[in-house]
Amino acid sequence: MPHPLQTALNLARQALWLTSPNPRVGCVITASDGAVLGQGHTQRAGGPHAEIMALRDAAERGHSVQGATAWVTLEPCAHQGRTGPCCDALAVAGIGRVVAAMTDPNPKVAGQGMARLAAAGVQTETLAPGSDEAIEARELNIGFFSRMERALPWVRMKVAASLDGQTALQNGQSQWITGPEARADGHAWRARVCAILTGIGTVLEDDPLLNVRGLDVPRQPHLVVVDSRLDMPLTAKLLDTQGTGEQARQIWIYTATAPQDAQHAGKRAALIARGATVIDMPGPGGKVDLAAMLRDLARREINELHVEAGHKLNGSFIREGLVDEYLIYIAPQLLGPGQGMANLPALTALSDAVKLAFHAVDRIGPDVRLLLRRA
Amino acid sequence: MPHPLQTALNLARQALWLTSPNPRVGCVITASDGAVLGQGHTQRAGGPHAEIMALRDAAERGHSVQGATAWVTLEPCAHQGRTGPCCDALAVAGIGRVVAAMTDPNPKVAGQGMARLAAAGVQTETLAPGSDEAIEARELNIGFFSRMERALPWVRMKVAASLDGQTALQNGQSQWITGPEARADGHAWRARVCAILTGIGTVLEDDPLLNVRGLDVPRQPHLVVVDSRLDMPLTAKLLDTQGTGEQARQIWIYTATAPQDAQHAGKRAALIARGATVIDMPGPGGKVDLAAMLRDLARREINELHVEAGHKLNGSFIREGLVDEYLIYIAPQLLGPGQGMANLPALTALSDAVKLAFHAVDRIGPDVRLLLRRA
Repeated sequence: MPHPLQTALNLARQALWLTSPNPRVGCVITASDGAVLGQGHTQRAGGPHAEIMALRDAAERGHSVQGATAWVTLEPCAHQGRTGPCCDALAVAGIGRVVAAMTDPNPKVAGQGMARLAAAGVQTETLAPGSDEAIEARELNIGFFSRMERALPWVRMKVAASLDGQTALQNGQSQWITGPEARADGHAWRARVCAILTGIGTVLEDDPLLNVRGLDVPRQPHLVVVDSRLDMPLTAKLLDTQGTGEQARQIWIYTATAPQDAQHAGKRAALIARGATVIDMPGPGGKVDLAAMLRDLARREINELHVEAGHKLNGSFIREGLVDEYLIYIAPQLLGPGQGMANLPALTALSDAVKLAFHAVDRIGPDVRLLLRRA
Repeated sequence: MPHPLQTALNLARQALWLTSPNPRVGCVITASDGAVLGQGHTQRAGGPHAEIMALRDAAERGHSVQGATAWVTLEPCAHQGRTGPCCDALAVAGIGRVVAAMTDPNPKVAGQGMARLAAAGVQTETLAPGSDEAIEARELNIGFFSRMERALPWVRMKVAASLDGQTALQNGQSQWITGPEARADGHAWRARVCAILTGIGTVLEDDPLLNVRGLDVPRQPHLVVVDSRLDMPLTAKLLDTQGTGEQARQIWIYTATAPQDAQHAGKRAALIARGATVIDMPGPGGKVDLAAMLRDLARREINELHVEAGHKLNGSFIREGLVDEYLIYIAPQLLGPGQGMANLPALTALSDAVKLAFHAVDRIGPDVRLLLRRA
């Protein structure tokens, strides 16, 4: 029989593309003999959390949860958000014991969920932060933890390159360096994030959609474009990817212009009319202040941010130390001179290199996928 | 009980650094109940082959090999080289059956070993070329097969690079991009080859030893330097790595000059006096003819050739299609502009890329090791 928290983690994984901006959480309710009475995972934002789903599942199966144990991958919430506090629902239902893999980093919860359960007479237990299940629970919600703990999204930069580090030929040709398996894998990584970010250079060169394709996803990530001078063409295809309804995709254009800037007033109005949001975030040198933009995106509830941009914007992100994780696909070919991964300054000493550490190395079809984080 | 051919392969692997230019071969002799009567692997060139070692081992253990089965990773030799034909020794010893993982590609053997065994009344069997053991036996001797089948060494190019494909900073600094584990692994790859090749640029810039260090090796690989204009300094440290005796290291300097060229006569004589061999292999543009050099190296019994050179010579090898395998260590860091892996021409279409295939992907300490072959 698998550990109930592993089952709960698997349930949480099923919610990977669904819950943004909420964390992916799984819950399993077991009887004293270990039998599963009910289980569930968090639904889309505004819908029921994992604990409520598990209680409902137990009720539908006709099981009493009196004195049962609830295993949750994250501490039950204690605040009235779009849904009621889960800790109260568990206590009211008669749950006797709650085991959480992690304390909720949300300052609105932060231990209060467990404290309220204990006050209601429920036995509580939280795993040590170094335990396998705690680490997995954190990894599953790495962006949520980043936003709660640092008020910043988890920034993952995606690059597809040749063995010799080229992302395009000198003439700009880049479709396709990696194979279909790696491209499909890239769409799965897009599907899990709250937003995809690119630069105006990529929009002008490739006119991309930057949405999730080839996968049956319940929602499309929002879209962020770094566009210092509001050069976004009104004909850009990505402006047509917004969708409608509650799951509509936001398009946020960050610019270094100002609303009173007459030169861009018409473009600004036209983009807003097209449904985009124009956000002024001027930084030095007429560029967008990327660090301020990230703080703003965290305020907009962006947990994981997927950066898929050209070498110039990539270089700016890296130079400013804003990248948390690199998702690099390496194709087994040599391209010779072309466009590199990122515009970086020439170094005079190897000790000044951007030092990273491999987090995972996998073969994806004919290519290799490297996942790296700061050393 | 492991398959006797797997045991024989493990014995052959023990000879990886030893037998050059002979193939690494293992032999196990078993009784009808599978009990091992004797085993051995090929010794250094001029010494006994695997079959003789296994027969001796059985004799030393006091076992009769009458009617026994000999399992060999390569067809027993049928020619009188520095040692007598192994097929005769097996037949004379009374071996009843010989199972070989591969037919010997050496045209002096090429099935004659098995034929002579059969003629002597020994039952013979050779594995299908696609079987696991046959593939492993071939991989173990990939250079020997290359030399026998193509009259060319197996050319393996070693590169240590950053994630963004740089092998050195613009100022030439390259020590060290990869970690100690990768560098030690690189020495193990040097240990298995017949010769290490570099270019005069690397000699002038780094003054390397290009020998095997940190491992207890029975022999040092020979050394090849591509030096079109005989620019080799007489003070180059690698000229001091020759050693003495039967296992002395040959130093072959390939040049595009000519013996009658007065300008280089003094240098030529001095290098020869230092123990080096100067070989004239002029090609177009005042460069060494690399393809002719490889054919010459095969005539000099070079099976595996380890290329460890700078981006210019690497580029020449790649452009001329002379590289069979790439051994690439990737360090988890970004270096920005520097020296790339290989000087290659700019492409106008991705379809013109040098297409390879990943053969193995492994983590070595903090780095990643990629092994690639032609697609």
